[in-house]
Amino acid sequence: MAQISLLPGERLDDLQIQGLRIIQRPDQFCFGIDAVLLSWFAQVRPGERVVDLGTGNGILPLLLCAKSRAAHIIGLEIQQEIAQRALRSVQLNGLEDRICIVQGDLRQAETLVSGQAFEVVVANPPYLRIGTGQMSGADARAIARHEICCTIQDVAMAASTILKMGGRLYMVHLCERMSEVCCALSERRLEPKRICLVHPYPGKAPNLMLIEAVKDAQPGIKWMAPLVVREEKNGPYTQQINEIYGRGERQS
Amino acid sequence: MAQISLLPGERLDDLQIQGLRIIQRPDQFCFGIDAVLLSWFAQVRPGERVVDLGTGNGILPLLLCAKSRAAHIIGLEIQQEIAQRALRSVQLNGLEDRICIVQGDLRQAETLVSGQAFEVVVANPPYLRIGTGQMSGADARAIARHEICCTIQDVAMAASTILKMGGRLYMVHLCERMSEVCCALSERRLEPKRICLVHPYPGKAPNLMLIEAVKDAQPGIKWMAPLVVREEKNGPYTQQINEIYGRGERQS
Repeated sequence: MAQISLLPGERLDDLQIQGLRIIQRPDQFCFGIDAVLLSWFAQVRPGERVVDLGTGNGILPLLLCAKSRAAHIIGLEIQQEIAQRALRSVQLNGLEDRICIVQGDLRQAETLVSGQAFEVVVANPPYLRIGTGQMSGADARAIARHEICCTIQDVAMAASTILKMGGRLYMVHLCERMSEVCCALSERRLEPKRICLVHPYPGKAPNLMLIEAVKDAQPGIKWMAPLVVREEKNGPYTQQINEIYGRGERQS
Repeated sequence: MAQISLLPGERLDDLQIQGLRIIQRPDQFCFGIDAVLLSWFAQVRPGERVVDLGTGNGILPLLLCAKSRAAHIIGLEIQQEIAQRALRSVQLNGLEDRICIVQGDLRQAETLVSGQAFEVVVANPPYLRIGTGQMSGADARAIARHEICCTIQDVAMAASTILKMGGRLYMVHLCERMSEVCCALSERRLEPKRICLVHPYPGKAPNLMLIEAVKDAQPGIKWMAPLVVREEKNGPYTQQINEIYGRGERQS
């Protein structure tokens, strides 16, 4: 494993899976439970090629490398500084042969991935419309949280462009925006086929959605059992969440 | 309360709310839990005017009469025999001053309700695409269950046509078809604003959705806590379901 020098403001975190580590800068953006849940929800088969639209610090390519036998994973990131940090994490873990970090705008996804067609796209896009939530300027944190550089429609368009027929998009987003997500996907021939809603604790309304859409599929959604994060409000993680965080291999 | 003669195959059921009764023909169609849940989910304010698109045996107008102070409720039903049965139930309960049953096709809704604009539309439409589920011919039961006489798009179009700006549509449908429902509504300027998912028992995937859409509203969905029907698989109803079935007044 390569040596690494941390830059000012950075820290090194242990992903607790196959010895992987990630470089993060807490004042900009650190991955959250949503990325971990998405890596659990996504079903990547051996030999498949994957693109992560808006990879940030590269958390999804790293987790998917550990949890699947994907042949190759491209992490696309618009912010140069963040893309470079993701690349350094890839090098740190010696995964240059499986993960490629590409700096660029997902609105030009087709060009950036050289017109190839992929089996899988994953996306943990900014959740908030511009003008909602707390936002100051267009710094790294704001770009990760708000639709400054890409909207749901942009993500749907990019995914549809680079997926083959029958290819799958796995996305995590706010439940609040489910209708916008479904409509944006359907408009781009990405049919929602599987949904898992995430509830903060039992009996509480869901706040996050995990959605699988298949290019050119027929309508019809298979709903999964609800995923509950904590045993009770402010309580410990449920067994299911501990398993998702703790184990090294996929359930299936 | 009026005298009533039952026709062959009909039976009289007690709605267990304000002494209301309904005439049903079990070999054609009897209302289910979905209609009861929709009458609980719908928020009808005093003095509002309501249209039920595809009223069947008139269950929703009857329940909404009991549970709200709606000024007037129109039940639109395409099948003549079913519409006449609904009308006899209205007469049986002496509700002719509040409920009007109109026989006609909801695809001509605007004409049938004389071009008026309404505050509320409710709909418990056929759930199944033609060619799915068990279906034989186009009898009363098939028309109630399958999209023979109206699709999700038809319901969305009819609701949008007769609702005023800011008017609300309350619909129950299969979770499986949520994406189609959201897209059909959005296309007709009916923005999904509130959703409650119905789970058969704890930990089980949801199967029914209750959705409120508002004409010309901004996107953004408020999710309710999940509604769980039974304590466990094949177990007794939950307390919440018993309250929804049993009490005579709205919660709010």
